[in-house]
Amino acid sequence: MKIAVFGTGTVGRALAGAFSRLGHEVAVGTRNPEETAARTGRGAMGAPPFAEWMAEHADIRLDTFAAAAERSELVVNATNGAASLEALAAAGAANLAGKILVDVSNPLDFSQGMPPSLNPVNTESLGERIQASFPRARVVKTLNTMNAGLMVDPARLAGGDHTVFLSGDDAGAKSVVTGLLRELGHRDIIDLGDMTTARGAEMLLPLWLRLYGALGTPDFNIKVVRGG
Amino acid sequence: MKIAVFGTGTVGRALAGAFSRLGHEVAVGTRNPEETAARTGRGAMGAPPFAEWMAEHADIRLDTFAAAAERSELVVNATNGAASLEALAAAGAANLAGKILVDVSNPLDFSQGMPPSLNPVNTESLGERIQASFPRARVVKTLNTMNAGLMVDPARLAGGDHTVFLSGDDAGAKSVVTGLLRELGHRDIIDLGDMTTARGAEMLLPLWLRLYGALGTPDFNIKVVRGG
Repeated sequence: MKIAVFGTGTVGRALAGAFSRLGHEVAVGTRNPEETAARTGRGAMGAPPFAEWMAEHADIRLDTFAAAAERSELVVNATNGAASLEALAAAGAANLAGKILVDVSNPLDFSQGMPPSLNPVNTESLGERIQASFPRARVVKTLNTMNAGLMVDPARLAGGDHTVFLSGDDAGAKSVVTGLLRELGHRDIIDLGDMTTARGAEMLLPLWLRLYGALGTPDFNIKVVRGG
Repeated sequence: MKIAVFGTGTVGRALAGAFSRLGHEVAVGTRNPEETAARTGRGAMGAPPFAEWMAEHADIRLDTFAAAAERSELVVNATNGAASLEALAAAGAANLAGKILVDVSNPLDFSQGMPPSLNPVNTESLGERIQASFPRARVVKTLNTMNAGLMVDPARLAGGDHTVFLSGDDAGAKSVVTGLLRELGHRDIIDLGDMTTARGAEMLLPLWLRLYGALGTPDFNIKVVRGG
């Protein structure tokens, strides 16, 4: 499948690399490819310069949001939640129309200090805002509830015995995304329902952030334990 | 231990009954004991009249919030989240001073229809509001993330292999509550940290409510899977 991954941070790199290894044709979308490729400093989370990562992934193109989206069948939004709508607008509604748009971002608001709060929250979600802003895109919210390493290699924790959630209004898109999640190694995939259920998945983040603090590692995930 | 359980609904009954079976001296607190005992109709969730439940639990007293709190060492708030501060005010700050106050409620707001939203949310929690309103009470938030049956009998699901969270500012109170949770059968107890971490535990509810919808049963719980 032709996949565009928006975002050059830890999550974008992890997903782009994993889909490429699985044999998909992957482009990474960014605002300004020349500027991204020319950066020499480390990223906000200490990630090495993107050019270094690109050199190790010669089969992955770096493109503008618009060009990456135009040439893809499926777009993954792995940009910063606060900048996601802007990134998708830069891609262009026409380039997203009819496409599956997998939103893995969280609307974290760092403006009031740590830990971040959520915005929107409770009576809306970023997933819903994206679907409302791009009504012809087939948006699926997923993977936002775990760290990037587990997104692409769930088996590294408890042999993969933990849960990933799906929300979205398009059953066909959820079916395709379920297939991709299985390719990545996810075994316990719960379809929460329509896009409003993304509120539940996004509102797990405040607990996730406190668990990160309490456990001292991001290498954990939620398993929904139910009766047999 | 002398335990007062505030609330005569499903959660209050489950906790009061369980603590009594474990040998604790239990009183149930309610606004107006005579009125509660005189009710003949079923409760909002279809629960039988409280008098029927009392008849099967002759060792449990029914008392006013104030009298139940005054005679107890530990108070459990299992009232409706929207009415919790009012119920605790009726108990009287003096009757809660120095006491461990276990808050198992959720600030669910049903005013905008189903599923309920949360209020407060994100930048505050009901646990924090309770602690701020009763600064001399030793508040511990716990058990709010699962249904009443699992609160008191975790082993009925996957042999108890799932997680319960604790939040609170008083380490001694959290230690006592951890002991009570172990008596109930809880094995995986994660101390999230101070009372602000109750935001995380309360904000799990939107996901819990969607999982209830997706799974068709409230008999599930979250397990935090972490590396060995």
